[in-house]
Amino acid sequence: MLLGSIEAGGTKFVCAIGDENYNIIESINFPTTNPKETLVKTINFFKKFPDLLSIGIASFGPIEVRKTEPNYGYITSTPKPGWRNTDFIGTIKEALDLPLFWTTDVNGSAYGEYSAYKEKKNNINSLVYYTIGTGIGAGVIIDNNFIGSEGHPEMGHIFVKHHPLDLNFKGICPYHGDCLEGLASGPTFKARLGVLGQNIPLSNSIWEIIAYYIAQAAIQATLTFRPQKIVIGGGVSSEKFLVKVRAQFKKLLNEYIAIKDLDNYIVMPLVSNNGSATRGNFALALEALNSR
Amino acid sequence: MLLGSIEAGGTKFVCAIGDENYNIIESINFPTTNPKETLVKTINFFKKFPDLLSIGIASFGPIEVRKTEPNYGYITSTPKPGWRNTDFIGTIKEALDLPLFWTTDVNGSAYGEYSAYKEKKNNINSLVYYTIGTGIGAGVIIDNNFIGSEGHPEMGHIFVKHHPLDLNFKGICPYHGDCLEGLASGPTFKARLGVLGQNIPLSNSIWEIIAYYIAQAAIQATLTFRPQKIVIGGGVSSEKFLVKVRAQFKKLLNEYIAIKDLDNYIVMPLVSNNGSATRGNFALALEALNSR
Ligand SMILES: Nc1ncnc2c1ncn2[C@@H]1O[C@H](COP(=O)(O)OP(=O)(O)O)[C@@H](O)[C@H]1O
Ligand SMILES: Nc1ncnc2c1ncn2[C@@H]1O[C@H](COP(=O)(O)OP(=O)(O)O)[C@@H](O)[C@H]1O
Ligand SMILES: [Zn+2]
Ligand SMILES: [Zn+2]
Repeated sequence: MLLGSIEAGGTKFVCAIGDENYNIIESINFPTTNPKETLVKTINFFKKFPDLLSIGIASFGPIEVRKTEPNYGYITSTPKPGWRNTDFIGTIKEALDLPLFWTTDVNGSAYGEYSAYKEKKNNINSLVYYTIGTGIGAGVIIDNNFIGSEGHPEMGHIFVKHHPLDLNFKGICPYHGDCLEGLASGPTFKARLGVLGQNIPLSNSIWEIIAYYIAQAAIQATLTFRPQKIVIGGGVSSEKFLVKVRAQFKKLLNEYIAIKDLDNYIVMPLVSNNGSATRGNFALALEALNSR
Repeated sequence: MLLGSIEAGGTKFVCAIGDENYNIIESINFPTTNPKETLVKTINFFKKFPDLLSIGIASFGPIEVRKTEPNYGYITSTPKPGWRNTDFIGTIKEALDLPLFWTTDVNGSAYGEYSAYKEKKNNINSLVYYTIGTGIGAGVIIDNNFIGSEGHPEMGHIFVKHHPLDLNFKGICPYHGDCLEGLASGPTFKARLGVLGQNIPLSNSIWEIIAYYIAQAAIQATLTFRPQKIVIGGGVSSEKFLVKVRAQFKKLLNEYIAIKDLDNYIVMPLVSNNGSATRGNFALALEALNSR
């Protein structure tokens, strides 16, 4: 059985073919240029596999996810040049007449993690996934469904309280200044210290500040969903960073509710090599096939 | 058809009997003293109605809502003297062998609002309800289900950014200091100004500060659930207050996502005279009956 995955990122596209065990058989990646060129490359890749059964697509956004809307399957109000109001699903559907699953990039990763825990016989039914990279995004799954009624979550843009040593940083979100993304995404390292995050050792106190904000996001997710797992991926995250996040989480939550095993509650992605999204897309492709 | 409602508040209990149209036939209220006395009064009220079919119970908390847990139906770690680890559902069930629906006080109100919108043929499938009173609580309904996997939401205790004119107020939450409840619940008026909220005119600038925090709660709910309605009840809320909340919401969200009709998005309860909880409990009693 051949399943397809499209990770449509703002910087690059990754397309992959996998089997029913979610092993990658072939994959390709190329930069995200204009919609026409990028989607033609995507289609040409999948055309090589006439036995392909369905495709899971996880896209940068904002995107329209409500099937009742005329622009379902579009990338909508993105600031990315050329991509505003792009009929992604319509274009793919016309070229490859297959069942498609359409969701956000971070929902794809969330679903990959959820499916990996299920496979491990870890009897999980709720999971929140954050990515902390160029931006901050979140996906939430409860009982096999994505959360989001009138649209997908945008939990990267909630407000948080400033760290006492970070009161004067105005934040870098073009919409909100000091929302979570504006205070704790990857580019905030450079905005504060003039140096990229990957070049700042974890001993630098800025990491405590970032951990303080991500801990607040985890508290928000906890008090809102009471989920079983909070997975934190993206370029900024690491096991050593999460040690700091857990410590701040514990202090801030102050035992208001009991979290049994914090080390297994706020965790790095289970799927290795950034593979959560591809795995999630394969699993969602299978969903699209089965619910046809 | 006779349905029952128990609003189990930390200060008082309200028990009611209603018909299938959720009209109240008889109701009683009495102070919340010790569990034994209070639950006996509750049981004696319902024993007068041998035709009663089921009861919806919305209780102060925290409570155990997971049916899989041995202490399902208990009030658990409450600070209220005498009530810690009270087997609420077990006690009621033993005295009155009826189908029971067990949820939090604010979920009861949320469900009352949801059911009122449904009745108005307002085709709603997602709603967030906040109460701003002695504390702040929230209930969330998506597709007829309450949100909350390992427990019920505690969205009153999320963190928010301080209002620029409120930087020095430390907040009054015994757990977190300056969480949402610590900054914006009813008793914070007195903590800041020495005067009860009901005695402070809406022209006082403290109301802008409270609105700023409640707007952040509404933004959090919006970016997390993308719900169709956010209902704000409780003693502190009023239509004039919500005018302020909407203005702050608009400014803070800064058109990051489009909210079509803000005046009909952040709203006062639809059910009049604080009747949301009773109505919700009747509707949940009916659910308990139908899912038996
Ligand atoms: N080890 C690291 N520590 C801190 N920041 C990092 C690290 N690695 C990458 N980043 C930052 O994360 C961002 C890139 O995130 P990434 O998740 O890799 O990609 P994207 O979000 O664009 O898909 C950049 O701002 C980069 O500076
Ligand atoms: N009109 C008002 N304006 C501001 N605060 C009020 C108002 N009415 C009541 N309050 C405050 O709200 C709290 C009581 O909230 P309420 O919802 O009536 O009860 P509870 O939350 O205890 O069930 C008290 O702190 C009270 O001072
Ligand atoms: Zn933002
Ligand atoms: Zn608190």
